[in-house]
Amino acid sequence: MNNFTFYSPTYFVFGKNEENNTGKYVKRFGGKKVLIHYGGGSVVRSGLLDRIKASLQKDEIEFVELGGVKPNPRSGLVYEGIELCKKEHVDFILAVGGGSTIDSAKAIAVGAMYEGDFWDFYSGKAVEKALPVGTVLTIAAAGSEGSSGSVITKEEGMLKRSAGGEAMRPVFSILNPELTQTLPAFQTAAGVTDIMAHLLERYFTNTKDVEVTDRVIEGLLLSMIHEAPKVIENPNDYQARANIMWAGMLAHNNCCGVGREQDWGSHDIEHELSALYDCAHGAGLAVVFPAWMEYTMKHDVLRFAQLANRVWGCSMDFKHPENTAKAGIHAFRNFLKSIGMPQTLGELGGKEEDIPYLAHTASYGNGNDGTLGSFVVLKEEDIANIYRLML
Amino acid sequence: MNNFTFYSPTYFVFGKNEENNTGKYVKRFGGKKVLIHYGGGSVVRSGLLDRIKASLQKDEIEFVELGGVKPNPRSGLVYEGIELCKKEHVDFILAVGGGSTIDSAKAIAVGAMYEGDFWDFYSGKAVEKALPVGTVLTIAAAGSEGSSGSVITKEEGMLKRSAGGEAMRPVFSILNPELTQTLPAFQTAAGVTDIMAHLLERYFTNTKDVEVTDRVIEGLLLSMIHEAPKVIENPNDYQARANIMWAGMLAHNNCCGVGREQDWGSHDIEHELSALYDCAHGAGLAVVFPAWMEYTMKHDVLRFAQLANRVWGCSMDFKHPENTAKAGIHAFRNFLKSIGMPQTLGELGGKEEDIPYLAHTASYGNGNDGTLGSFVVLKEEDIANIYRLML
Repeated sequence: MNNFTFYSPTYFVFGKNEENNTGKYVKRFGGKKVLIHYGGGSVVRSGLLDRIKASLQKDEIEFVELGGVKPNPRSGLVYEGIELCKKEHVDFILAVGGGSTIDSAKAIAVGAMYEGDFWDFYSGKAVEKALPVGTVLTIAAAGSEGSSGSVITKEEGMLKRSAGGEAMRPVFSILNPELTQTLPAFQTAAGVTDIMAHLLERYFTNTKDVEVTDRVIEGLLLSMIHEAPKVIENPNDYQARANIMWAGMLAHNNCCGVGREQDWGSHDIEHELSALYDCAHGAGLAVVFPAWMEYTMKHDVLRFAQLANRVWGCSMDFKHPENTAKAGIHAFRNFLKSIGMPQTLGELGGKEEDIPYLAHTASYGNGNDGTLGSFVVLKEEDIANIYRLML
Repeated sequence: MNNFTFYSPTYFVFGKNEENNTGKYVKRFGGKKVLIHYGGGSVVRSGLLDRIKASLQKDEIEFVELGGVKPNPRSGLVYEGIELCKKEHVDFILAVGGGSTIDSAKAIAVGAMYEGDFWDFYSGKAVEKALPVGTVLTIAAAGSEGSSGSVITKEEGMLKRSAGGEAMRPVFSILNPELTQTLPAFQTAAGVTDIMAHLLERYFTNTKDVEVTDRVIEGLLLSMIHEAPKVIENPNDYQARANIMWAGMLAHNNCCGVGREQDWGSHDIEHELSALYDCAHGAGLAVVFPAWMEYTMKHDVLRFAQLANRVWGCSMDFKHPENTAKAGIHAFRNFLKSIGMPQTLGELGGKEEDIPYLAHTASYGNGNDGTLGSFVVLKEEDIANIYRLML
């Protein structure tokens, strides 16, 4: 285990009807003039936005609003939000939505406290201050409600880049599983896949002696395997929604990643697919991750066998551990298929002839130096091979 | 899963040599005049106290000190600490030691901000403010480094009572596993037992649909089963010490207990043994917990079978699940024995004739209303029966 620091000071409020207490929590964390930031559609239609406004009004908190966040959130709306905050003297950002909305809110929060271009922080500048951000989560997937990171796409050049810093971590997050019940099965399954990927990206490590975090990751994966099919079968299963929602936070506030090297290569490989084909991030990961596993398995067969045995219940082949490792990847694929996720590049709208471009952009785009990952360091050629395994 | 809030804002600094950065963290959290609070013995002999003082001096932080904390910390020293803080205008309490020292420091922190008797807070008064507390942990066991609670014994009447509140949660905790390497095997094993008990007290619940927290608890228990024997065999096994130390924090900052009813009856049953026989809390729990399990097993055989199967690897007897449940309790006892823990009341210095007194005090002492627990509500007679199972 490596030395580490762990700091997760978000105040989590979990359960039914808790969004009606939004005003109370904004007040507790010092907000007097709020920007409510959201996407649109269901947040408005379901009456959620109205309930939140009523809660703010009850606590005599002023607000302005900015809707229109899209999946893979864009810089244009961020600039608009920053301008609005400065003009209206906003002192608190409230994100109502999923990971895209929260990431966009974090970008606005940083930009509102900065004289220059907020994109500086997405180009490597260290984040030092930001307006406080609170969230009302409506999608269990990204884990942005408890994380210090944000991913934004800049329209010019379609650059998808991330920023992070403690000042960007939400001060409170309200998680009501009921709010996720209207999410269609496909998006629900894509969220589950994203959560599992966040766990696996921390699982595949070269750091030795990380039994505690290994076991916590395995436990969370087991709980997803147990709960996800229930939600796919019955979208109104509150308890399964609740388990998935809380697991989504734990998967990404880094309690599973402390003291160990992590490998985010597969996330980067997927980002190219979302960027080019505009597919859901989780759906892309469902195609990318098993391929990445097949390609990197030989690097540490016993770690893959451990996952297969402990999480997928594959019996250990002590003579040929690679059989167990392979059986685990096979089980993972079957699981993803069973919850309705795609299996191939073609299902995402991808084409074989795009692979050289995808591999080149993944390895050299977005500030990368030609390689991805740390568990196995992948070069452009490796990345192309991984894309080919998705055909 | 029930509605819940989760808030764990402690800044954790984990790893080798981190105690040499104590000054930096005291400064970050606003301390200018520190009370260093500790037990004695090894903290002084090992040079740890001197290293911490040097770190404070390097950051130009003034300090006074108060040693002498004993296991099952007493109110007398707390009063002394409060007086010292007021006289010296202390604005930060730094606990250097294990759970007893941290609990004592929390009591001083609360008392130093209060005009009345600090014992009011251990008699039910709500904690609203306290001086900030930082910790340098030397024993993996109590979890007080990440928790909002404290247990103090009042000399008059030997009342052992607890207080809790967000203001008492440490602002930072430094966890260097090396500092636990000098701990003798018996105390190490008692610490492991305390950690496992903290997990099990959250595991046995009547709340339905708590798969995520179940799995995290099971994962942490599995990691303890894996790591503890390594430390008993080789006290200098840094990596095993590290896994145990981090698990100890996770077991008690309540990430494993959110959204579910918990049952702390066994902890109360043990407290009477520590109070009367002055045994180590963990050693007492090693005797109490399996007896409590035997007595309550029939209430939810399948939950016990689940634990036995998932954690102790007992194969599931689908015709007679109670056999699996029993096999799990048997495996737990064997494990505790294997790490050197006592098995019977006699080994703790206890006597059969004390049982009526123990059962009466457990059920009516310390503010209890005649019953203990929630998974199974135990009356005085049940508690006496549980003590008898320890003979």
